[in-house]
Amino acid sequence: MGMTIAEKILAAHSGHDHVVPGQLIECATDWVLCHEITTPAALRMLEERGMDKVFDPSRIVAVPDHSVPAMNIKAAKMYQKLKSWVQEKGVKHFFDVGRGGIAHVVLENTGLVNPGQTLVSGDSHTCNAGALGMFATGVGSTDLAGAIYAGKVWFKIPETMLIRVTGEMQPGVTPKDIVLEVIKRIGADGANYMVMEWVGDTIDRMDMEGRFTLTNMAIEAGGKTGIVGVDDTTRQYLRDRGVEPGSYTEYASDPDAKYKVVVEIDAAAVEPTVAYPHIPSNGRVAGSDRIAVTHAYVGSCTNGRIGDLRDVARILKGRKVADGVQMIVVPATQAIWKQAAQEGLMEIFVDAGASVSYPSCGACLGMHSGVLGPDDVCISSSNRNFVGRMGDPSAQIYLASPATVAASAVAGFISDPREYNAPAPGTEAAD
Amino acid sequence: MGMTIAEKILAAHSGHDHVVPGQLIECATDWVLCHEITTPAALRMLEERGMDKVFDPSRIVAVPDHSVPAMNIKAAKMYQKLKSWVQEKGVKHFFDVGRGGIAHVVLENTGLVNPGQTLVSGDSHTCNAGALGMFATGVGSTDLAGAIYAGKVWFKIPETMLIRVTGEMQPGVTPKDIVLEVIKRIGADGANYMVMEWVGDTIDRMDMEGRFTLTNMAIEAGGKTGIVGVDDTTRQYLRDRGVEPGSYTEYASDPDAKYKVVVEIDAAAVEPTVAYPHIPSNGRVAGSDRIAVTHAYVGSCTNGRIGDLRDVARILKGRKVADGVQMIVVPATQAIWKQAAQEGLMEIFVDAGASVSYPSCGACLGMHSGVLGPDDVCISSSNRNFVGRMGDPSAQIYLASPATVAASAVAGFISDPREYNAPAPGTEAAD
Repeated sequence: MGMTIAEKILAAHSGHDHVVPGQLIECATDWVLCHEITTPAALRMLEERGMDKVFDPSRIVAVPDHSVPAMNIKAAKMYQKLKSWVQEKGVKHFFDVGRGGIAHVVLENTGLVNPGQTLVSGDSHTCNAGALGMFATGVGSTDLAGAIYAGKVWFKIPETMLIRVTGEMQPGVTPKDIVLEVIKRIGADGANYMVMEWVGDTIDRMDMEGRFTLTNMAIEAGGKTGIVGVDDTTRQYLRDRGVEPGSYTEYASDPDAKYKVVVEIDAAAVEPTVAYPHIPSNGRVAGSDRIAVTHAYVGSCTNGRIGDLRDVARILKGRKVADGVQMIVVPATQAIWKQAAQEGLMEIFVDAGASVSYPSCGACLGMHSGVLGPDDVCISSSNRNFVGRMGDPSAQIYLASPATVAASAVAGFISDPREYNAPAPGTEAAD
Repeated sequence: MGMTIAEKILAAHSGHDHVVPGQLIECATDWVLCHEITTPAALRMLEERGMDKVFDPSRIVAVPDHSVPAMNIKAAKMYQKLKSWVQEKGVKHFFDVGRGGIAHVVLENTGLVNPGQTLVSGDSHTCNAGALGMFATGVGSTDLAGAIYAGKVWFKIPETMLIRVTGEMQPGVTPKDIVLEVIKRIGADGANYMVMEWVGDTIDRMDMEGRFTLTNMAIEAGGKTGIVGVDDTTRQYLRDRGVEPGSYTEYASDPDAKYKVVVEIDAAAVEPTVAYPHIPSNGRVAGSDRIAVTHAYVGSCTNGRIGDLRDVARILKGRKVADGVQMIVVPATQAIWKQAAQEGLMEIFVDAGASVSYPSCGACLGMHSGVLGPDDVCISSSNRNFVGRMGDPSAQIYLASPATVAASAVAGFISDPREYNAPAPGTEAAD
């Protein structure tokens, strides 16, 4: 019987010719990604057991991102712990504050993680990197400790869900809307412990940024990871980062690979989608109800990339954030930050009345830089709208694309970004 | 007997022709500045007493700045309290998150506060506005409550210290070095309850930004406020903000005004000065000792203005922040932020490996966005280096000019910015 991409990668990393769903394997990890929130707990476990070593310092990527620059003394200590460990162990790839950003987005841009590889991290959105045709997944701090020490983790081979997306997205519809539609369709547990493999002509035409948004959200449907096969888009993306085809292994799913579920999506029928509180599967068409917002957040590992910022700038240009709305724009990395500055997007954001933050996970998980208070209502480009995720438990979080966030910030209530497909009057000439 | 500028302003605001130091007056407040940290306490006092009104909503300026975008739920609630009060009372001048920045720097740029006026706020650096030839001072939350309710506060007329600064500052020396030198000379209690009046040809040539830095730091010598008389520089600054001479009252100290103390400073002899822990009067020449730093902070109401950012960019251009140093640059307002973006300074900061934050008081007082951990060592352009001011009590804070902070960030240890008076090799042509 044939295998899926994920099965082939896991077989190759566990010394098997063939694996089947449900099988337990000991999987070699090509890469371990470490940030300052979950890594210190893993390091303490290792230290307490006298196992304070790393399997390969050149295979660990460390990126403080959640609570830096530190928002309190405890956060400063966690950063110090990560940094001193990096220095002691000679961890090769350290993206310090001011040189990195949100770990997943930093990593996807390094050229380090390549198709056919495995990656683990103590962070649930590690699945992000699956867009590169690799097997990437989040693990708990205990498994993380094992991976740091031994370069191995135990996995049960997951089933795979095939998601076939075909057709042209309407103007104003983005990959975020596609993935919110899929999660709405299958439910927030619809892909429990499955690999979500994305195929179809819509995916074929989609740029890497959009693909990362899709794989990033796998965990929001319960998925073990998301994955997209390698094509010319992937190859060019890697070439732009100094990685030539032939230096990595491309796996493709066999024609007779077995899928647990097949989901068919007509991209042309997908509308700008907003996931209502308090679960990402609670999708409705943007603007269905008139919901006033107090906060508008653009950022996170899901949607803080340059294309996302361009979508936002296109709508904000020549317009103002509505009175009473606090809008925060968080470029995901320093490189994206700089690119946005060079393209003149930053002035557009500030002219509109938005705050631009240093790259950070901050507001996405209610850690800092935009924590919600009681009864606040936030339209957010992030990935989770659970109770209390962004601050006070009474706050309401609506998930959407960056374009929908921008449209809603301008209107003051949740709005359909297609109403803003045309530039603001008087701004056309300047473009 | 003649009067000083401050005495004349206070006499005019208390219905007296003449006042003398030590005299108690009931002073009318032209302006009350409110931020989200101290104002809620004042509002609660008023509410508990059934005195929940404001003397004049058009004379109140509200600017959330310390803990926004909120770094936790408590901060979000304080912001909500300020915002809902602004809406209820019709407070006319509200600079919301994304439209304002650090309150003192927002205010100085509005054109609202003018020479000859009085200003109070529940913030010790309210003295900042004294550079506009007005009497501006910080008060406790009880006095703030009185000012909000009645537009009046009690004052004891302060003595005045005259600080005469003459001569040309050396290249690499800035107003921050002048004020650190003065505080070193007179001590952190050297101007206790005095007005610090700045005169001399050095001040005459100094731009408004430099003057704000001087008056901002009055409180660090115990001063009631700092003040600079009105001249053509002041008038032009106000004209640029739509305020014409004749629409405000210019007061000058009488030739026979009485000064408690006179301090003479030779600006040419002032060197780049660093205030060592843990008191702002502990000044030494920058680079006297080789002190490694972990953090470099540019920002605050003292030194987060466009000229400060240009000083930093000039040094960072073509150079990198040293490994192991976390550098944070915080433009003081959204307008300064935009100006820096337009001038291309932002790319220079990010290229060098610095983080650029939204405008905020954050790290200056250890609230968020750069809190220090145990044994961290920070070179900072801010105003206070007390134990625990920026985070952990064991952290060491060194106060300096933005130029000294930038030079130290590049070197990795506290350095003399005069070593960086020349541009980095290869960057001249680009300027």
